[in-house]
Amino acid sequence: MNPQQQLEQRGKFRITVFEEEYFQGKSCEFTFECQNILDRDFRKIRSIKVENGPWVGYEYPEFQGQQFILEKGDYPCYQTWSGNSSYRTEHMLSFRPIKCANHSDSKITLYECEDFMGRKFEMCDDYPSLQAMGWCSKEVPSIKVNSGSWVGYQFPGYRGYQYIFERERRQGEYRCYNEYGTQAHTNQIQSMRRIQQ
Amino acid sequence: MNPQQQLEQRGKFRITVFEEEYFQGKSCEFTFECQNILDRDFRKIRSIKVENGPWVGYEYPEFQGQQFILEKGDYPCYQTWSGNSSYRTEHMLSFRPIKCANHSDSKITLYECEDFMGRKFEMCDDYPSLQAMGWCSKEVPSIKVNSGSWVGYQFPGYRGYQYIFERERRQGEYRCYNEYGTQAHTNQIQSMRRIQQ
Repeated sequence: MNPQQQLEQRGKFRITVFEEEYFQGKSCEFTFECQNILDRDFRKIRSIKVENGPWVGYEYPEFQGQQFILEKGDYPCYQTWSGNSSYRTEHMLSFRPIKCANHSDSKITLYECEDFMGRKFEMCDDYPSLQAMGWCSKEVPSIKVNSGSWVGYQFPGYRGYQYIFERERRQGEYRCYNEYGTQAHTNQIQSMRRIQQ
Repeated sequence: MNPQQQLEQRGKFRITVFEEEYFQGKSCEFTFECQNILDRDFRKIRSIKVENGPWVGYEYPEFQGQQFILEKGDYPCYQTWSGNSSYRTEHMLSFRPIKCANHSDSKITLYECEDFMGRKFEMCDDYPSLQAMGWCSKEVPSIKVNSGSWVGYQFPGYRGYQYIFERERRQGEYRCYNEYGTQAHTNQIQSMRRIQQ
């Protein structure tokens, strides 16, 4: 990235992380990805302000483990970004910006079987319940992102484990659930929505 | 409601509540509202299957206290429907069906001040971050539902306290935050979305 691109980028993405809840304690602002917040002499991230997003946070360094979507707004404590309930971790140690298509251009295709086999369903809108729109299963075995960036959730109403799906990564192709993320133990996805610029 | 309407209604809304997590223990199916689950000799609701929705659950009997949107799908434990983090209650003691417009017809207007005063913003789509779409505040002082049913959330990404807004109730008019719900302590709303049939 040349200096001009860096300059453009600086205005676009901006996130501030804090060591204590409710935006207290040590803070640090980022306009680029952070591979490991521990390298910045942070012990933990306990609150976040997203000035310009979207970003994705990860449980572990180097973008590993649970994923957390972070759109513009204030996140005063860990529970406001972590959707998971049963396996409660308080780590968010790395994060990076997400490239999005225009919100209205987003499109994704869900497949009934792995490797893009079986019946498919194309979506251009947000679905808090995939079953309510006619998807007959609690599982989504493979996914192709046609445009934009999306987030899928384990439970209806955008709860539970989160998985970020991007056209800009792996050519938008997710052939089986272990390509959804390093923490994925199942292909259970019950709600899905576009990620907003 | 006459018997024919009741019959039609029966096919439309359906929810099963369970006394234990992961759909274990005593269960009871409802196709109409429940004013107080304790009257059914339940001690607690710990998991839910929504066969046809949407429904709204309430913390206390008679549709009082915190609100929980329940769309079609499986909710294996309390945390999958409760969005609140700081004030953790495990009660959901009453619930009722929600009438929705066609998803694509939903429209809502946000106002900068109470009593529908000040600048306004009309929405027809889901917004995981109101600030990202240009709403300059973390607060929404008054709201008019033009059509459909909506759910607003305290934090971005559909987290925190939930407030159901319906065209079918109070003529869709919510003049100040204490009309948002009996548990509303502030007018902080940072994300909002349509409720899906």
